[in-house]
Amino acid sequence: MTYLFNDPADFATEAVAGLALSHPEHVAVVHGGVVRATETPKGQPALVIGGGSGHYPAFAGWVGPGMGHGAPCGNIFSSPSASQVYSVARNAENGGGVVLGFGNYAGDVLHFGAAAEKLRAEGVDVRIIKVSDDIVSNSPENHRDRRGIAGDLPVFKIAGAAIEAGADLDEAERLAWKANDATRSFGVAFDGPTLPGAEDALFHVPDGQMGVGLGIHGEPGVREEPIGTADDIAAMLVEGVLAEQPERAEGGYQGRAAVLVNGLGTVKYEELFVVYAKVAELLEQAGITPVRPEVGELVTSLDMSGLSLTLVFLDEELEQHWLAPVDTPAFHRGAMPPVDRPRRTSFWEAGADETPASSEESRAAAAKVAGVLELFESVCAREEAELGRIDAIAGDGDHGQGMAYGSKGAAAAAREALEAGAGARTLLVRAGEAWSESAGGTSGALWGAALIAAGSVFDDQAGAEPRTVVDAVDAGIDAVQRLGGAQVGDKTMVDAAAPFREALDAAFTGDDAAAAILQAAQVAREAADATADITATLGRSRVLGEKSIGTPDPGAISFSILMKELGQHLS
Amino acid sequence: MTYLFNDPADFATEAVAGLALSHPEHVAVVHGGVVRATETPKGQPALVIGGGSGHYPAFAGWVGPGMGHGAPCGNIFSSPSASQVYSVARNAENGGGVVLGFGNYAGDVLHFGAAAEKLRAEGVDVRIIKVSDDIVSNSPENHRDRRGIAGDLPVFKIAGAAIEAGADLDEAERLAWKANDATRSFGVAFDGPTLPGAEDALFHVPDGQMGVGLGIHGEPGVREEPIGTADDIAAMLVEGVLAEQPERAEGGYQGRAAVLVNGLGTVKYEELFVVYAKVAELLEQAGITPVRPEVGELVTSLDMSGLSLTLVFLDEELEQHWLAPVDTPAFHRGAMPPVDRPRRTSFWEAGADETPASSEESRAAAAKVAGVLELFESVCAREEAELGRIDAIAGDGDHGQGMAYGSKGAAAAAREALEAGAGARTLLVRAGEAWSESAGGTSGALWGAALIAAGSVFDDQAGAEPRTVVDAVDAGIDAVQRLGGAQVGDKTMVDAAAPFREALDAAFTGDDAAAAILQAAQVAREAADATADITATLGRSRVLGEKSIGTPDPGAISFSILMKELGQHLS
Repeated sequence: MTYLFNDPADFATEAVAGLALSHPEHVAVVHGGVVRATETPKGQPALVIGGGSGHYPAFAGWVGPGMGHGAPCGNIFSSPSASQVYSVARNAENGGGVVLGFGNYAGDVLHFGAAAEKLRAEGVDVRIIKVSDDIVSNSPENHRDRRGIAGDLPVFKIAGAAIEAGADLDEAERLAWKANDATRSFGVAFDGPTLPGAEDALFHVPDGQMGVGLGIHGEPGVREEPIGTADDIAAMLVEGVLAEQPERAEGGYQGRAAVLVNGLGTVKYEELFVVYAKVAELLEQAGITPVRPEVGELVTSLDMSGLSLTLVFLDEELEQHWLAPVDTPAFHRGAMPPVDRPRRTSFWEAGADETPASSEESRAAAAKVAGVLELFESVCAREEAELGRIDAIAGDGDHGQGMAYGSKGAAAAAREALEAGAGARTLLVRAGEAWSESAGGTSGALWGAALIAAGSVFDDQAGAEPRTVVDAVDAGIDAVQRLGGAQVGDKTMVDAAAPFREALDAAFTGDDAAAAILQAAQVAREAADATADITATLGRSRVLGEKSIGTPDPGAISFSILMKELGQHLS
Repeated sequence: MTYLFNDPADFATEAVAGLALSHPEHVAVVHGGVVRATETPKGQPALVIGGGSGHYPAFAGWVGPGMGHGAPCGNIFSSPSASQVYSVARNAENGGGVVLGFGNYAGDVLHFGAAAEKLRAEGVDVRIIKVSDDIVSNSPENHRDRRGIAGDLPVFKIAGAAIEAGADLDEAERLAWKANDATRSFGVAFDGPTLPGAEDALFHVPDGQMGVGLGIHGEPGVREEPIGTADDIAAMLVEGVLAEQPERAEGGYQGRAAVLVNGLGTVKYEELFVVYAKVAELLEQAGITPVRPEVGELVTSLDMSGLSLTLVFLDEELEQHWLAPVDTPAFHRGAMPPVDRPRRTSFWEAGADETPASSEESRAAAAKVAGVLELFESVCAREEAELGRIDAIAGDGDHGQGMAYGSKGAAAAAREALEAGAGARTLLVRAGEAWSESAGGTSGALWGAALIAAGSVFDDQAGAEPRTVVDAVDAGIDAVQRLGGAQVGDKTMVDAAAPFREALDAAFTGDDAAAAILQAAQVAREAADATADITATLGRSRVLGEKSIGTPDPGAISFSILMKELGQHLS
């Protein structure tokens, strides 16, 4: 049960405020989360780590020298929005680029990814690290597609230590992925967490049973079985994690491992120590030496009952960074070298940016882009009812409205940007942000990210060639595929966008973008209509599954309509 | 719910083992608990802090440089035994004396007190600090009689920092009491904790209600009321604690306070931060500056739901020690100065002590003491059934057996000590330990402590005068009163022992101890018989209250019988 809250809608924000008030030496509040209270040294990569709230000390409790530079804090168990991530990253970045780190969940992939598109469009080098340590959530071959749980701690600890030790962005990214690839977790849960103000837990495990591999937001595990003794559970977790122990090798892993026993919230310290006593014994039997184990509440899930075991199979390099000093609100180790860390006094605020200087050619291109967005607005207004009708059959009926709101917001932002003298890149970035915020939902975020990614192909100092238009469309589609995670056949917008992209690239010979787009739009439309035969497994229609048969995916339809209109408009 | 355990009887021991395995750099296991893994510098006072298990990080999580030197760990929610406390203190002590610190609960007072008697009898200077910060448990005038909750943390932090900074035993004791006198806590609870293996919680609070001031083991609070918002609760707690804010004074308290928001186990971090945000606002309105606040799980109670607010009203001296570096398994602050801390390699084990050298006169006195203990054994055997009969009416019927077992164990230990050549002091100390361990229960612990305290009046190098005998009896009775906490009229052994002591001191003129004891024993018997008219409120008969009317207290009766036999034996 969660007992202490005011308006549940303010819970996450108030918690962030309280954290910052209680740790003013470590963190300062910015829009969307916290950043270090001290300056990031010029040119140092910024490690920005985050996710939903409710997992403290993950992630805001890990901001400080030797670990994170900032943490966007979403609502309880919800990814921070792209604008939250952007704001925190923008505040944390100081000329060395940004590593965005988060647990591998669809919402986080989408919103951190959209923020990354914007930062890149603005010239910031961004790398993305998706922590994926939970062994039950995918096969060993697909380790990077697993979901992230307590492995967040060692991965971000190691990346943060590497940065503190002088790693540049490439090196920080390399080490973070290396740490993630060496990290395995396995957990069990006894009961689910209760959101502030909710009457009951998000989910339950039957009395006397434990959910083996049950995720921290209730994601499916592998089975339920009767609760064993602490020793039984320790043995099961050790066995599970050790099944993926790497070969020992000269200069590589030699049997030394960081070990974490993590309590999810209401499994208490003494219980975790009882488990650890057995874990330590079993690891010794397996010839493994625990290196600075951590036993406690490391990545929680409000008042969820459960625990997980994490091992990081260390080589010398990973061990060095695992052991390095760190000084954050919730994670301390050793003594930081006495480096002068001036307190930070200025912060970036949303809306504070001047419009970047632009060339006449780019402003001309921007005006054309604005025209396309006006066109999209009118087409979406025209199609709103029909898209809503299709979506109501097997979705939640809001696709027409989402497209109308999003395109309207984008067109308005484009007009404002034009008036402010923006070039084509800046105009598209602002329009993309506006689409995402005006539309809401996943398709809004994807369209927003697509516009931003398209914008990064343009240049505020240069005009647009036909090739630029085609590349921009391609970049937008790539962003949708990258962030949305859908494959062809999932009955989403990608079913139209992927064949469109292929047809466009084939049709475009270097001079007539309009003709190529028109030709590809025909392919897209046919593909969109064909989604009527697919059962939804992902995206808007997944909850209704079989009911979606006979009706095409509205996202695929709207995409194909807009591409056809774009082709005609450019002709 | 507590989910992770093996045999519940082993839970506390296994938890201590797991803690030490996960923090080998900080703590090492000894009989009864943990001590620092590094050497205590020669002549430095040892801060030994403890209590029942189930409150982690209290107390074993606070052992390390800048804070505790050792922590005896009792069973869940039960005081460590005197032998556990002694073992840990003996291992922690290194020539500078011992500060024994614990929350003010009857069981802890008894067992830490008994250990102190033994340490003192062995020549170790011991000071006792009872933390008493919970404002609902007694009036402001009786602050030192309140029970201890989260105030344990700042009191022990400040005492530990003072010791690290070079304080001697007097200074450490002074600062610990000063910190305790400046500390106020107030809490609310929403639900009780569940012991490992138990089907249900120790106690419950009705749904939707909160227990205001409810103690961490279910001790009575002040009222139940509907659960308010986080802000309401913050306001109530701040108001309660500030009611005892001291006057501000030049060179004293000037509005700066250490602030703790403590979660008892299942109230999670984000909730505590939401509360802290309001606490900080209200303190600012009251003109109070929080100094290095701590918001988190500081003194838990397994999976109990609830929280407390603690303020330490700081002056410059307290603030300096509150802010000083500390490095323990669960509490870190700043960077410890780079002092060489050699790892400890040898530990004291029970039974490892040689019998101290003794003089012929002391061995002669020891033989007489052994004779008294043989007498007690035979008297207790004779009275066992009758004492059991009386106790069965309004108690649990085990008093006769307890006295028989205890006196038998003591007599056997005395014989062994005599054979080993012990003097009178050593013999009584060993007999006292044996009584306590053989008898169990509160009266066994009190009789054990009485013998040990009596022993400290003797000397292994000197014989006994009549005055020595009377002083020893007085010392034993003082120990019973000090450790048992009973007053005359509570229907306990003290109802006979207190008038006995008074009569003995009045009757003894310096040469005939036997006559004085006989005379006082008559007073004791009358007082013991008179307890039949008292309703029990404390001790063995309290649960039956009114039912105890008409039956005397068996502890008072057994005391008066043994004193009469002692007088006759000495005549």
